[in-house]
Amino acid sequence: MNTDQRRSFLRAATAALATSPWLSSAGQGRAEQAPLPHDMGNMPASWTGKEQIGMLLYPGMTALDFVGPQHMFTSLVGATVHHVAKTMAPVVSDSQLAIMPTVTLARCPRDLDILFVPGGGAGTVAAMQDTQTLAFLADRGSRAKLVSSVCTGSLLLGAAGLLRGYQATTHWATHALLTAVGATPVQARVVHDRNRITGAGVSAGLDLGLTIVGMLRDGTYAQTVQLLAEYAPSPPYNAGTPDTAPPDVTAMVAGMFKDFDPQVRAALQVAQGDRSATERRVK
Amino acid sequence: MNTDQRRSFLRAATAALATSPWLSSAGQGRAEQAPLPHDMGNMPASWTGKEQIGMLLYPGMTALDFVGPQHMFTSLVGATVHHVAKTMAPVVSDSQLAIMPTVTLARCPRDLDILFVPGGGAGTVAAMQDTQTLAFLADRGSRAKLVSSVCTGSLLLGAAGLLRGYQATTHWATHALLTAVGATPVQARVVHDRNRITGAGVSAGLDLGLTIVGMLRDGTYAQTVQLLAEYAPSPPYNAGTPDTAPPDVTAMVAGMFKDFDPQVRAALQVAQGDRSATERRVK
Repeated sequence: MNTDQRRSFLRAATAALATSPWLSSAGQGRAEQAPLPHDMGNMPASWTGKEQIGMLLYPGMTALDFVGPQHMFTSLVGATVHHVAKTMAPVVSDSQLAIMPTVTLARCPRDLDILFVPGGGAGTVAAMQDTQTLAFLADRGSRAKLVSSVCTGSLLLGAAGLLRGYQATTHWATHALLTAVGATPVQARVVHDRNRITGAGVSAGLDLGLTIVGMLRDGTYAQTVQLLAEYAPSPPYNAGTPDTAPPDVTAMVAGMFKDFDPQVRAALQVAQGDRSATERRVK
Repeated sequence: MNTDQRRSFLRAATAALATSPWLSSAGQGRAEQAPLPHDMGNMPASWTGKEQIGMLLYPGMTALDFVGPQHMFTSLVGATVHHVAKTMAPVVSDSQLAIMPTVTLARCPRDLDILFVPGGGAGTVAAMQDTQTLAFLADRGSRAKLVSSVCTGSLLLGAAGLLRGYQATTHWATHALLTAVGATPVQARVVHDRNRITGAGVSAGLDLGLTIVGMLRDGTYAQTVQLLAEYAPSPPYNAGTPDTAPPDVTAMVAGMFKDFDPQVRAALQVAQGDRSATERRVK
């Protein structure tokens, strides 16, 4: 595309994207989620999708793990984003943010373009021992075009057997646990191996989500989403990784995970027991 | 503090912070928000607060504007974070995320340490014309120790008369509107003028929230929160500001705000009319 073509392409797309939820009142006040009435007439065909995206909600998950990617996924014009939970009751995060599901595990579409799982602490350990949650993940994950997570969400994917033989990442303090679910730990912000794409701790969800937007549309679309979210981060401190944080701060945060490691390993034994039992039943 | 003292200080604090919501199961499954039973015995006194923090929820707000700061504020051990809305019904964001309030405008504590307002598009314009919301902001904002916002939330603060004579920021595409509420626009990620502290577009809420954590505790505490959230952002594109985005992408996003400017100016006339009427009644 030359510059003139590119300008004309972008001009045509503007009208369509301007009807995205951010600047449109179309979605206001509705408790039920439904496709927005986007004006797709002017939109380049490659900028419109029909993705079905299932994002798992569970008690004690970290809300920011969920909302970073949710912001990015809902910028995909034409996509439908489902907030999936065991029941339709509000799901309370580890920071006491209560989010309403849009659909139950049972009624979530069977074939998803993206299956997404947020992380957390004690809540994630509990979810790793929940048979219904693990069965949902194993089922949808077996057919989803992309299987993704943020933070310790990868350990939950792993508990459902979805990361065996894949490279993956998780919160920096929990990397050793990836081997316990049969994955190969990689220290990176976003790790993409075939159709598995996992993000590092909590805030990495913004980078993961924007990466997926670029994969499903194109770089120009993703840049538009980035500029609309003014995603030019400027943390007031430089302590986001163990490499840059003062050693004492790193030791302190590592200490907070002292009990998490054995709890996850114990939960995995429960999950693996469940899976073996299911496999025996299937045989 | 020398190194040994610092180590001992951090060791003592670890036990207390390890009981923070992230790794504790204390808060799981509760729909109502309440102070967590932190073990503060080992905690340096300066690391524990009693802040009352009121975060406004309104229909059509941008969820990520809210959840970035909410993640950071809830890491303040001892603080109580209220999610405040007109009624106790779920509040649906512009990305169709439905969040449950913890308290109504009427029952929100009268004296807040932080009053926080997220931004949005059409939803923010609507909130700028809502008499009850404006009266709440004007009242709590008149006594709050810190008055803060992310993105176009500053225009909503401004509609309530809270930014007259203050330096402030907002989403990059809406800076011209700050003068319409009597503020002085400053192009920066986070702008702090006396007790007003405002953030740029959407994702700036993480930087704003972490900045406030550092102000209310200290740099070491904030670095611990940053490392726990692995906040070492690495956007896959470099298009987060008009300075770095391709010019066509910038023109496209600016075009999306074409109708926003006159809508906000019209809403401000309504808000100013309401305020004049209230002032006349008070006289």
